[in-house]
Amino acid sequence: MDTAAQKTLVPGNVHAGGEAGRSSRPAPSLSDSFRSTRALSLALAEHLSDADATIQSMEDASPAKWHLAHTSWFFETFLLRDHLPGYRLFDERFPFLFNSYYEAEGQRIARFSRGMLSRPALDECIAFRRAIDHAMESLLGREDCAPLIALGIAHEQQHQELLLTDIKHALFQNPLGPAMFDRLPDTPQHKGEGWIEHQGGIARIGQDCADTRFCFDCEGPRHRVLLEPFRLSRSLVSNREWAEFIADGGYRDPALWLSDGWAWVNREGVEAPLYWHGDDHFTLAGWQPRDPDAPATHISYYEADAFASWAGKRLPTEAEWEVAAADADPAGGQQMDRAETVQPAATPDLFGSCWQWTRSAYLPYPGFSPAEGAVGEYNGKFMSGQFVLKGASCATARGHSRPSYRNFFYPHQRWQFTGLRLAQDI
Amino acid sequence: MDTAAQKTLVPGNVHAGGEAGRSSRPAPSLSDSFRSTRALSLALAEHLSDADATIQSMEDASPAKWHLAHTSWFFETFLLRDHLPGYRLFDERFPFLFNSYYEAEGQRIARFSRGMLSRPALDECIAFRRAIDHAMESLLGREDCAPLIALGIAHEQQHQELLLTDIKHALFQNPLGPAMFDRLPDTPQHKGEGWIEHQGGIARIGQDCADTRFCFDCEGPRHRVLLEPFRLSRSLVSNREWAEFIADGGYRDPALWLSDGWAWVNREGVEAPLYWHGDDHFTLAGWQPRDPDAPATHISYYEADAFASWAGKRLPTEAEWEVAAADADPAGGQQMDRAETVQPAATPDLFGSCWQWTRSAYLPYPGFSPAEGAVGEYNGKFMSGQFVLKGASCATARGHSRPSYRNFFYPHQRWQFTGLRLAQDI
Amino acid sequence: MDTAAQKTLVPGNVHAGGEAGRSSRPAPSLSDSFRSTRALSLALAEHLSDADATIQSMEDASPAKWHLAHTSWFFETFLLRDHLPGYRLFDERFPFLFNSYYEAEGQRIARFSRGMLSRPALDECIAFRRAIDHAMESLLGREDCAPLIALGIAHEQQHQELLLTDIKHALFQNPLGPAMFDRLPDTPQHKGEGWIEHQGGIARIGQDCADTRFCFDCEGPRHRVLLEPFRLSRSLVSNREWAEFIADGGYRDPALWLSDGWAWVNREGVEAPLYWHGDDHFTLAGWQPRDPDAPATHISYYEADAFASWAGKRLPTEAEWEVAAADADPAGGQQMDRAETVQPAATPDLFGSCWQWTRSAYLPYPGFSPAEGAVGEYNGKFMSGQFVLKGASCATARGHSRPSYRNFFYPHQRWQFTGLRLAQDI
Amino acid sequence: MDTAAQKTLVPGNVHAGGEAGRSSRPAPSLSDSFRSTRALSLALAEHLSDADATIQSMEDASPAKWHLAHTSWFFETFLLRDHLPGYRLFDERFPFLFNSYYEAEGQRIARFSRGMLSRPALDECIAFRRAIDHAMESLLGREDCAPLIALGIAHEQQHQELLLTDIKHALFQNPLGPAMFDRLPDTPQHKGEGWIEHQGGIARIGQDCADTRFCFDCEGPRHRVLLEPFRLSRSLVSNREWAEFIADGGYRDPALWLSDGWAWVNREGVEAPLYWHGDDHFTLAGWQPRDPDAPATHISYYEADAFASWAGKRLPTEAEWEVAAADADPAGGQQMDRAETVQPAATPDLFGSCWQWTRSAYLPYPGFSPAEGAVGEYNGKFMSGQFVLKGASCATARGHSRPSYRNFFYPHQRWQFTGLRLAQDI
Repeated sequence: MDTAAQKTLVPGNVHAGGEAGRSSRPAPSLSDSFRSTRALSLALAEHLSDADATIQSMEDASPAKWHLAHTSWFFETFLLRDHLPGYRLFDERFPFLFNSYYEAEGQRIARFSRGMLSRPALDECIAFRRAIDHAMESLLGREDCAPLIALGIAHEQQHQELLLTDIKHALFQNPLGPAMFDRLPDTPQHKGEGWIEHQGGIARIGQDCADTRFCFDCEGPRHRVLLEPFRLSRSLVSNREWAEFIADGGYRDPALWLSDGWAWVNREGVEAPLYWHGDDHFTLAGWQPRDPDAPATHISYYEADAFASWAGKRLPTEAEWEVAAADADPAGGQQMDRAETVQPAATPDLFGSCWQWTRSAYLPYPGFSPAEGAVGEYNGKFMSGQFVLKGASCATARGHSRPSYRNFFYPHQRWQFTGLRLAQDI
Repeated sequence: MDTAAQKTLVPGNVHAGGEAGRSSRPAPSLSDSFRSTRALSLALAEHLSDADATIQSMEDASPAKWHLAHTSWFFETFLLRDHLPGYRLFDERFPFLFNSYYEAEGQRIARFSRGMLSRPALDECIAFRRAIDHAMESLLGREDCAPLIALGIAHEQQHQELLLTDIKHALFQNPLGPAMFDRLPDTPQHKGEGWIEHQGGIARIGQDCADTRFCFDCEGPRHRVLLEPFRLSRSLVSNREWAEFIADGGYRDPALWLSDGWAWVNREGVEAPLYWHGDDHFTLAGWQPRDPDAPATHISYYEADAFASWAGKRLPTEAEWEVAAADADPAGGQQMDRAETVQPAATPDLFGSCWQWTRSAYLPYPGFSPAEGAVGEYNGKFMSGQFVLKGASCATARGHSRPSYRNFFYPHQRWQFTGLRLAQDI
Repeated sequence: MDTAAQKTLVPGNVHAGGEAGRSSRPAPSLSDSFRSTRALSLALAEHLSDADATIQSMEDASPAKWHLAHTSWFFETFLLRDHLPGYRLFDERFPFLFNSYYEAEGQRIARFSRGMLSRPALDECIAFRRAIDHAMESLLGREDCAPLIALGIAHEQQHQELLLTDIKHALFQNPLGPAMFDRLPDTPQHKGEGWIEHQGGIARIGQDCADTRFCFDCEGPRHRVLLEPFRLSRSLVSNREWAEFIADGGYRDPALWLSDGWAWVNREGVEAPLYWHGDDHFTLAGWQPRDPDAPATHISYYEADAFASWAGKRLPTEAEWEVAAADADPAGGQQMDRAETVQPAATPDLFGSCWQWTRSAYLPYPGFSPAEGAVGEYNGKFMSGQFVLKGASCATARGHSRPSYRNFFYPHQRWQFTGLRLAQDI
Repeated sequence: MDTAAQKTLVPGNVHAGGEAGRSSRPAPSLSDSFRSTRALSLALAEHLSDADATIQSMEDASPAKWHLAHTSWFFETFLLRDHLPGYRLFDERFPFLFNSYYEAEGQRIARFSRGMLSRPALDECIAFRRAIDHAMESLLGREDCAPLIALGIAHEQQHQELLLTDIKHALFQNPLGPAMFDRLPDTPQHKGEGWIEHQGGIARIGQDCADTRFCFDCEGPRHRVLLEPFRLSRSLVSNREWAEFIADGGYRDPALWLSDGWAWVNREGVEAPLYWHGDDHFTLAGWQPRDPDAPATHISYYEADAFASWAGKRLPTEAEWEVAAADADPAGGQQMDRAETVQPAATPDLFGSCWQWTRSAYLPYPGFSPAEGAVGEYNGKFMSGQFVLKGASCATARGHSRPSYRNFFYPHQRWQFTGLRLAQDI
């Protein structure tokens, strides 16, 4: 394979890439999904040195190496250890290193110490991956394992996105501004205009995870919601609009900000989205000129909310966003093979450009109860203080998202590809 | 007045007191409300020394003296300065000292420095209050001022509760365990049993503040909500039940806790509700034996959520609580003169015992927009990261609460009189 | 007593006051010293409200009330409890409140919580003082108690100075800039000129505490030191000179600063001595114009060192200062009744204006060992990271200092009356 | 060269190694010293991966890669840039990355961000080194450059020791306990017994750096000191003795500790020297059993002082140590070619085992003034709050130390090879 070419294409592969995107394509088998997902993780790390893959820039982020190993630990722990008779751990010491927050799975390294793992080397982590992949072949066809495998794939896709956003944040700390890729894929420029209107009423959102389609348990149960009439912008807020907000003193007017947001702006000295500097911004291809027409991204909830106040609009609720997305989806909310299928020209960037903050706190749906056991820890544990983001970003794995998907972050966090779609009451 | 007797009764006056509680009593006039509210604040501080009224135990809390002056600053700034021709400020330097967070009203002393205000002395703050009260007499009858006066009264009632919870927290820091009152009023012991059931459907919650009845703007607009069938406990979780939770290892089992909550428990070394020590707890009457049948209080949202998980139940949503409370209210959600009127025997402690955590984040209602100008800053600014509490506590001013009332605190905060009423799906 | 007159004079009484300063006056008896020292502490607090005496502005400082009670606790613990048969503690709870750092004397309130002691009230602390004073009368004549009484007096004198510097720091936090005294005593204006020269050689410094004269144990043993020839300035650096240092960019030139000092300047944003604002400075009489000819004070060791570098000079060592002071003292290093006696016109402000930083770390003298038991904890425990200051300030009790006296603070601390006398090699 | 053998020997080479240690060997030329010092740095890093060389475990430490590049930056900046006509920087961006604290040399990366430098890769840093080495060949013979070259060599030797102690600290964070070397060199077991006695009197310490022998400017001027009679232990405190201190409750008795030390012990939960765990300790060869007869090391000043108090002894002063070391040195204090030459059987481990805390604060000597310009920043800037250590450790470069050498660290720091030799008054 031609490395340079690959080096350009990889990030595109994450979400928007090539011909695999045709909606007519039949859904891949679980085995194929497993193999391609596992392969993509490795491809993402291909241009990272051992040192690149080791550093940790903040407690919120993890080293690339850790992501590669942690996703393998997941398959080893919940599939191989529990379901493959006679399986022996690749390395007895790895669970301590590569468990994340699963309390039920025992002690683990302090999160802020992940950046001290110069050993195992990147190569050893890759060897760990290959061993897991090999062992997993025995389980790929087993029906009883299918739900956990699907979960493991989705889990790994989440970490693929984190790997990209975490390494971006780490490279940004380096005064040399190193690039992970030679260039970024072209951003699709089919931007929507105007507003989608919705007349309100009772709708259904969420997804029952007992379905044949995979979803995280926090996405269900599917349930009724009551909406008042609203409008949702067909376009994301652009860099150009954000620059106007800045020029108009948006970061200096306390009337626009939530109380916590105003404290954050002042404490951190925030004056622009993360990664902005002059007319440039930092990307996975290093410092680049900023396209004024591209969606503004790397903004916190606080910034999104302040911008909306400045614009005389508001953030959408999760239900508004999801109902609008499902309406735009000819399959009626069915899991999308890839983002484009649910993006008629009128609303092109629901998925694949950036995650979109909603004004909805990340809380359990009516009737929700977390799955039993360690794998169920994930969703139930995080339901306080975070806000839901909908859609998918340029770094989200193809096929990973859907209208019912619930991403969530704290309101000050902005190292993800986070943006803003405005809403208003009718 | 007999001081000792008064010293016992004052906290009772705050919420549950004497004959004024009869529901047949006509609603007091605005002027009367103003005068009695202002008088109550002074009465609350009657047993505080200048030093007691000066100390600040944490950044969340404020000195009693500051509460007394800040509530007066509110009337001076938004009523007297703006509406009384020729009014001159009592002291030009006070706005800097006694503004709280109103950015539109200019610079103010850092919150954590409020505890350095040994001057003005408590007596001077009281003189400031008297001067404001005197000047306000000219405005009490003016119709154009009525809405702001009603707001000022409600604002002062909020600070009455904060004054009590803040001074409790401050006195608790003192190894001598000083008492502010000789004894506490008897707690009413008409405890509910069993569950209220609700069949779900579309209901209305919130209150339109354009009504003749005062409410905070965050309580509106009144709007439709969709409920699924649920049950709500007729009783609050008691100290006895909480002790069982502790005995069963509730504070040591990560499976019961939200992720942030578990971090909080470990970081702070939390092992019981605030103010518990052995079989005693700290009260405004000093250290006292804990009544096992009284509602557990001074618990954080994290604790409330963990307890509910342990009990196999959940916290109610704000809408569930409010609909149940309105159903219990013969006046159908009308503002209550005092708490007992809306408490049939079946659900006696909706109001007046302790605030009850809901699982609802404090977010704006559909159609909400903050009031214009400085007085509107309050509600809109705080809508992130906090959870709604419903009801009223033993420290809430009589007539201050109502089913639509939205109290809110961060999930780790527990120096308020906060408790828990369980819910579950049907 | 006329309060207003007293209110002016009190700070003068601390060090520089009236005719009592004549050196021909016989040394007061120990009983007289006890009584006058105890009376002076009360006089210092005379103009403080209960609230003034309660607040604590930083962990380094203590409330005035605490100083009053802690000095009484000292006499109660080490004299009355141990030496007066049948003595019963004034209040069993006070030792926990008013012990400072004496580990051997048991648990004590956390230092940063001293500011929460609204109770006991100032009046109760004064009642505690009076009870101790009364009980102490039985011990004043006992020879076996004399050394501990002398220690208690010296200890109380130290706290008198701290009381003044701590309350100054607390009142400074108040935007109202309250004054403790109506006016400050006139500063004596007999400033020295030029340099004292010393030819070096072997000298003796320190003082043996077994002498009839009281000293702290860290002042001994008296021992030999070897000096190289040096000069010591006859005058302290003045406010005028300090303003020149500022105007010349002294606070912005890293070449002038110690590494830790430069980090401190930048972290704290330091641009001038503490309490300076424009041409004014904050004093115990509130905000006052700054006298350019008065000694610069409230400077840290870092600032003193940077100034000396800027001036092409250096700080004196402790030994240099002490030898020069002893030479200036006709009594040859004997304990001074009051400062003026050792201040011939040539070096008028060795004592009584401000403490003078030396470049000597506070370390034990050759042969030093701490006294046995709790009272010996004081000196031995603090011998790391602090620098010695010599002399005495305007806030030092009359008769408290002497050439061998070793005051010590951390290099960043500057809420004491600290100044600078330059030295250089010959 | 055989890598495995090398891998064992490297640390030995640092100080104590092989036949090169004969004292009869003539002093190497400056050029030879430059080349061998530069080569040793590379050899030290030979077993480090790019990731090992990148991580930074705390703000006090730096990545190995950074040490390699910083020492090269020193030669580039102060020699090549200033003295080699036409020299062009290897990379214009490196000065920002690899300057340490030299304010006069401009902006530099924040110290705590050094651990983010995954690029330049270790290989690039080595290429930088080689380029510098090559360019330096032109200057090695120039007499005008000799003093700066000697300084650069000494500077690099300091960083060799830091590289070893920093990587030890980083690897220690890793739960896998990785080893940098296969095994450690044998520790020489010629331990001293009893005490050296000194009668006191006037002695000379320090070294004039204008001499033909290199020294750091803080070592001079050579000057007279006055000593009282003292004894100095011929042996360092051993692991066995330290274990007795622990068993006797040494870490739990406040009476033994300096005030700051006691706060440190409690804040950090210190219970043993750094790197101790059970009967093992962490070394550059991973976790190893602890030799009870080896010197205790990785102790802070606070611990050293507490141990001395427990033992009824004290730490020596810098002058005592230096005079005793010079007496032991047949060359009378002359710079030692290697440690063994100054270690008669009576005092075998003055140099080469571990640095020895003294009770002397790191302060300038009489007559000291820092060198002009950026290279002079080093010593003068650090003279506050640190204590002097004498001798040399197993990680000190051969020939780097001498009796006048002044190492210095803060009293809480203990990631260096720091130990303790007791003293007492006669």
